[in-house]
Amino acid sequence: MPTQEILDSVLEEVRPLIGQGKVADYIPALAKIPASKLAIAVFTNEGELIKSGDADEAFSIQSISKALSLTLAMGIYQPEEIWSRVGKEPSGQAFNSMIQLEMEQGIPRNPFINAGAIVVADLLQSRLSAPRQRLLEFARQLSGDSHIVYDKVVAASEMLHSDRNAAIAYLMRSFGNFSNDVIPVLNNYFHACALKMSCADLAKTFSYLANKGTSVQTQKQIVTPTQTKQLNALLATCGLYDGAGEFAYRVGMPGKSGVGGGIIAVVPGEMTIAVWSPELDASGNSLAGTKALEILSERIGRSIF
Amino acid sequence: MPTQEILDSVLEEVRPLIGQGKVADYIPALAKIPASKLAIAVFTNEGELIKSGDADEAFSIQSISKALSLTLAMGIYQPEEIWSRVGKEPSGQAFNSMIQLEMEQGIPRNPFINAGAIVVADLLQSRLSAPRQRLLEFARQLSGDSHIVYDKVVAASEMLHSDRNAAIAYLMRSFGNFSNDVIPVLNNYFHACALKMSCADLAKTFSYLANKGTSVQTQKQIVTPTQTKQLNALLATCGLYDGAGEFAYRVGMPGKSGVGGGIIAVVPGEMTIAVWSPELDASGNSLAGTKALEILSERIGRSIF
Amino acid sequence: MPTQEILDSVLEEVRPLIGQGKVADYIPALAKIPASKLAIAVFTNEGELIKSGDADEAFSIQSISKALSLTLAMGIYQPEEIWSRVGKEPSGQAFNSMIQLEMEQGIPRNPFINAGAIVVADLLQSRLSAPRQRLLEFARQLSGDSHIVYDKVVAASEMLHSDRNAAIAYLMRSFGNFSNDVIPVLNNYFHACALKMSCADLAKTFSYLANKGTSVQTQKQIVTPTQTKQLNALLATCGLYDGAGEFAYRVGMPGKSGVGGGIIAVVPGEMTIAVWSPELDASGNSLAGTKALEILSERIGRSIF
Amino acid sequence: MPTQEILDSVLEEVRPLIGQGKVADYIPALAKIPASKLAIAVFTNEGELIKSGDADEAFSIQSISKALSLTLAMGIYQPEEIWSRVGKEPSGQAFNSMIQLEMEQGIPRNPFINAGAIVVADLLQSRLSAPRQRLLEFARQLSGDSHIVYDKVVAASEMLHSDRNAAIAYLMRSFGNFSNDVIPVLNNYFHACALKMSCADLAKTFSYLANKGTSVQTQKQIVTPTQTKQLNALLATCGLYDGAGEFAYRVGMPGKSGVGGGIIAVVPGEMTIAVWSPELDASGNSLAGTKALEILSERIGRSIF
Repeated sequence: MPTQEILDSVLEEVRPLIGQGKVADYIPALAKIPASKLAIAVFTNEGELIKSGDADEAFSIQSISKALSLTLAMGIYQPEEIWSRVGKEPSGQAFNSMIQLEMEQGIPRNPFINAGAIVVADLLQSRLSAPRQRLLEFARQLSGDSHIVYDKVVAASEMLHSDRNAAIAYLMRSFGNFSNDVIPVLNNYFHACALKMSCADLAKTFSYLANKGTSVQTQKQIVTPTQTKQLNALLATCGLYDGAGEFAYRVGMPGKSGVGGGIIAVVPGEMTIAVWSPELDASGNSLAGTKALEILSERIGRSIF
Repeated sequence: MPTQEILDSVLEEVRPLIGQGKVADYIPALAKIPASKLAIAVFTNEGELIKSGDADEAFSIQSISKALSLTLAMGIYQPEEIWSRVGKEPSGQAFNSMIQLEMEQGIPRNPFINAGAIVVADLLQSRLSAPRQRLLEFARQLSGDSHIVYDKVVAASEMLHSDRNAAIAYLMRSFGNFSNDVIPVLNNYFHACALKMSCADLAKTFSYLANKGTSVQTQKQIVTPTQTKQLNALLATCGLYDGAGEFAYRVGMPGKSGVGGGIIAVVPGEMTIAVWSPELDASGNSLAGTKALEILSERIGRSIF
Repeated sequence: MPTQEILDSVLEEVRPLIGQGKVADYIPALAKIPASKLAIAVFTNEGELIKSGDADEAFSIQSISKALSLTLAMGIYQPEEIWSRVGKEPSGQAFNSMIQLEMEQGIPRNPFINAGAIVVADLLQSRLSAPRQRLLEFARQLSGDSHIVYDKVVAASEMLHSDRNAAIAYLMRSFGNFSNDVIPVLNNYFHACALKMSCADLAKTFSYLANKGTSVQTQKQIVTPTQTKQLNALLATCGLYDGAGEFAYRVGMPGKSGVGGGIIAVVPGEMTIAVWSPELDASGNSLAGTKALEILSERIGRSIF
Repeated sequence: MPTQEILDSVLEEVRPLIGQGKVADYIPALAKIPASKLAIAVFTNEGELIKSGDADEAFSIQSISKALSLTLAMGIYQPEEIWSRVGKEPSGQAFNSMIQLEMEQGIPRNPFINAGAIVVADLLQSRLSAPRQRLLEFARQLSGDSHIVYDKVVAASEMLHSDRNAAIAYLMRSFGNFSNDVIPVLNNYFHACALKMSCADLAKTFSYLANKGTSVQTQKQIVTPTQTKQLNALLATCGLYDGAGEFAYRVGMPGKSGVGGGIIAVVPGEMTIAVWSPELDASGNSLAGTKALEILSERIGRSIF
């Protein structure tokens, strides 16, 4: 089990890496985040929260939300309704590539690349009356933090730079793999990305992934044990963009990253971990965050492999 | 822990699937294997072997040998010598595609697609005086079965149908990622694929993957605990061709398949499993074999996720 | 010079081919055109019009309009303003592929694939106050036929099936190669495709391509002699989708086809030819129309090669 | 008709461009050619040879030989025997790309990219007893220059750098589109590329392309008038690598370039032109050579468009 001391020392060990990565700058709201932010939080299946650094400061979780949206969709759709529209395989390409999407007839490789997450947003739009509000409540309940909000500036800024994602949505529509109007679905998708949560929030929120589907925070069952295993499998093979293999090799935990610099990772049966450091590596994953997880994995002797 | 009874019942459960897949037929020697063959073997970290069906019958392990060759290479090369020449990421494409290889300057995605395994064969060729003999001895020692041989008919037949793999090797050479003459390296590569081993042999051979790098059979350390974790991570993300995500989703174990219909799978800390059923699914993995592992995983409640 | 007799006999010779191609059916308005329609018209640089078959019946000119739009753009833009945004090379891919567009950073290969024509529509939108009306007047003047109209049903139907083209436009926008709102530009683009013109209209309209840039019909200079040569060069290498090589091989004239079954072809210095037969070959070009041009080329001994 | 004066002035006009391109350096034998070489030769259908600069100095014709090899193949094979194995369309990709070749099942796009020319070499190998000697005699007869030889150093050097072309040949073999052993065919292919000819030789050699298939030099019929038209069509759409569209736009003549810096161009019915300047542009075509043809085309008012 990680102690406060271990978490503190892990952060000190990776702090010198700050300056070697690059803060996401495709929208101004992300570009202005100080590169010096650094945080880690662990939430154990016993309900203990251990944290270090800026672990209570909320940041833009970005693509980490894709794991939350998929969880929501798995609760309201039959498996075949989801997996006929999005695959389960690593993409082997950059997260927003359209080449594979065209060659594979509009079926995205997995729910964690942009195209796949947009399909999930389309699914939520079709069956929920207020998908945006529902996702927010879901995050608030799972984290126990009622102050979680959407960062409206980020969401609006994403919408202003949405051409690539609009192209993806229209391409899927041209293949019959998109049911709703493009704009509102993208708007919800960008809001999900604009969720502001802290590492403490995130570690608590995803505790069901370490606890056979039951939230440690709320003690409610979110997904079945089998679905939990499936979610972790998808995270392990597809959760880190085109760096999933490297992450498995170095860290050895199912995980999901976001371009805001956050990463969540799961030690099934034991704990959920969240890290944050805004600078990204070449694959778009938090550079110091990945290193922190790698060191922690060695220090506590935990990995799925 | 799996019992004899469990293994027997798993095989009975999947036997009706025979007829729904397709035996590999790109070389005659594989095409003539009876589709009815069915086997499973489990080797625990305590040294217990449990088996059912045709578990003592040797078959062509094909790409399962890629895990063995990589293990051998990791013992004689520094990590950076290997990973500068082959990646660690899933390919997202068919196992023998050259498109990605050209776009990524002759660096194969991972050591378990053909291109990557041919790079590993090139590495072994450069540093071993008799790589083919060495690999055979390695398999014999790890399995404790001194009767393991290369199937000369299969190896010769592969060599006769080697144009695609020759194209791959020459393309890598044109990018400076191939050091030896193409033909002898391919010949060794095809011999590795032509190793004949039974499920019992395979479960014992790969026991080091479940036992922090130490062979349960020989009690010798084959790779370090960290290398073991790395090997399992690579198997989990890249070991099943373009079906790694589906395999993780359904089975949840690091694994490696071959077009001969064999699959090995690892439960770290507990056991190694080998299955065999010659008919393949659309991704080139044993159809009934995958199902057997999926059922066994549920029955014994074991998975890495 | 072709005579009435030659044109009649060419049509009779190709009529048996009707039934071997496939009428475009991606929108209902095109699908319902009788496959039996067959027409040819020749307009000589001396102003003589020779025609046969349904040569006075207007049909949807579809992509033939791309040549007209480019001509319009060449009149109001400097060459570098156009050719920095769209290339001059054959695509080697299907006319609506997005793969190349992504790999080449949003710069379409040439102005005659959809992406390139949409860039031209974006250019016209930026500099003309009423681009749609202007194009219509252009067609009316050049043909001398004041009854030419847009087929509103076709334009509306295209707009309903515009997802693929919207994806193309948004992808180019994401690369900074699109200046206006997507919807109005697409709407104008679809209207251009929905121009209804007869073979007689088309042969007259494009007479400037055979006459060093001066319209034979109006005796006005439309483009310079050098621009005429450039337009013909682009038509010869890129005008027939992914069948330009085959068309050059068989017919040997610069040309532009549309999925409505029309093709225009140019014999520089002598004449412009228009053919119409709704059934298409595998490349999307009129099957009997191409054959008619091939036979005519042989019969009158004219080709650019 | 070009005069001596015109040719002299064209060369003076383009000479300042020397220094802006890049001499091919993938083999040493090409890299050492002085960048200052500059030549032009015109051979009219009346048999007049006009030349300027280094027009009698032999250089490595490289890919220009692909037009000669195809001519030879068209004389000994039925059209369908050739065109079932190689296409007639521009590739839209770099001349040695394997991506398209894999996606299109081993059928090269056209006979002027490497893959296509290797298929032609395979065809010649299958039906000629001494293809290498035959091609040499063909070049000697057509040019009337009995001193033409293969540059053995260049051929040997190409063979040493043949990995990419070997990959291409083996890939086609894996698709069943290659009949002979790879090495001897490549050896002949490289010898063809290593033909040493002057601009004067080249202009005379290809005179049949301007003269309905009959060599102006020998007055023998080399190909039929229809085949001549077909060859010119293929040259116009595919003869300049991925710069065919630009060449048509600027020069407006069927042509074929080589990385030795030579280009041949055809004015059907009038003349054949050869230029030489070793520095290449980004598409691999002679930079000053292309410009010389562009200026000459304007000066004499000749182009096919």
